[in-house]
Amino acid sequence: MTRFDEFQNSLGIAPNMLTRRLNSLVDAGLLERRRYSEHPPRHDYVPTMRGRDLLPVIIALLAWGNKHFAPEGPSVVLINRKTGAAVDPILSDPATGRPVEEPDYTLAAGPAAGPRTRQRYGAIGDTASSTRKRAPGRRRPASTARTR
Amino acid sequence: MTRFDEFQNSLGIAPNMLTRRLNSLVDAGLLERRRYSEHPPRHDYVPTMRGRDLLPVIIALLAWGNKHFAPEGPSVVLINRKTGAAVDPILSDPATGRPVEEPDYTLAAGPAAGPRTRQRYGAIGDTASSTRKRAPGRRRPASTARTR
Repeated sequence: MTRFDEFQNSLGIAPNMLTRRLNSLVDAGLLERRRYSEHPPRHDYVPTMRGRDLLPVIIALLAWGNKHFAPEGPSVVLINRKTGAAVDPILSDPATGRPVEEPDYTLAAGPAAGPRTRQRYGAIGDTASSTRKRAPGRRRPASTARTR
Repeated sequence: MTRFDEFQNSLGIAPNMLTRRLNSLVDAGLLERRRYSEHPPRHDYVPTMRGRDLLPVIIALLAWGNKHFAPEGPSVVLINRKTGAAVDPILSDPATGRPVEEPDYTLAAGPAAGPRTRQRYGAIGDTASSTRKRAPGRRRPASTARTR
């Protein structure tokens, strides 16, 4: 579904409202307006990479809402298309295949972290660097080191 | 981190602002106020199940933001605690271990779907029921069936 009329039929909202929403999704870089006919001039709307990458967030939010805000059952569910089974998706680490959860996974300050974020999370590799020996040339006198 | 003072130190915001935010998180059912001392009366704030279940959504949102809105690198990253490796998490199906993505996975109308949602997604098992034979007792005359 990429065309104005299709969105309008599916959503059942007023054209001016739909125009406003599509424009703001284009402005936000989530949809791209694409010309598909020159005569007459017509365009449709396709998700950008940024928009496509938002899908897992939306699905995770859907699963959360279905679990906690749908006492009479969900209106929309994620399914395995082959089996028809409803899916309760989890966030996982593609490198290990394991679920992203404590204590195996945690948040840490990244390269662009400011001082407060660094203080809050500790920088990446802090554990490693704190066990790493200081280079001899940078070693300070014991008296100074003691007060650090 | 569960206590007012800890949140305040970590966030560096005014106490009245923090109070307002904590109250709205309690009202939304994401945090629970828990009495931990009777004399003097003191309470702290712990995530409810609803609050804990929101974590994957927040982490998925973080990963999306890091990918699309952090040209100078991320401030906060998800890491594998053992290896220190940064993780780009994916949504997966715990039943199959496979990534939740088209065409293997899709959205469908759930049990509480209204007519418009049913029309938009098709109900679960529609494919199955459309190939299922109608029970003989409910079969209609061919003349009626032709106009359906």
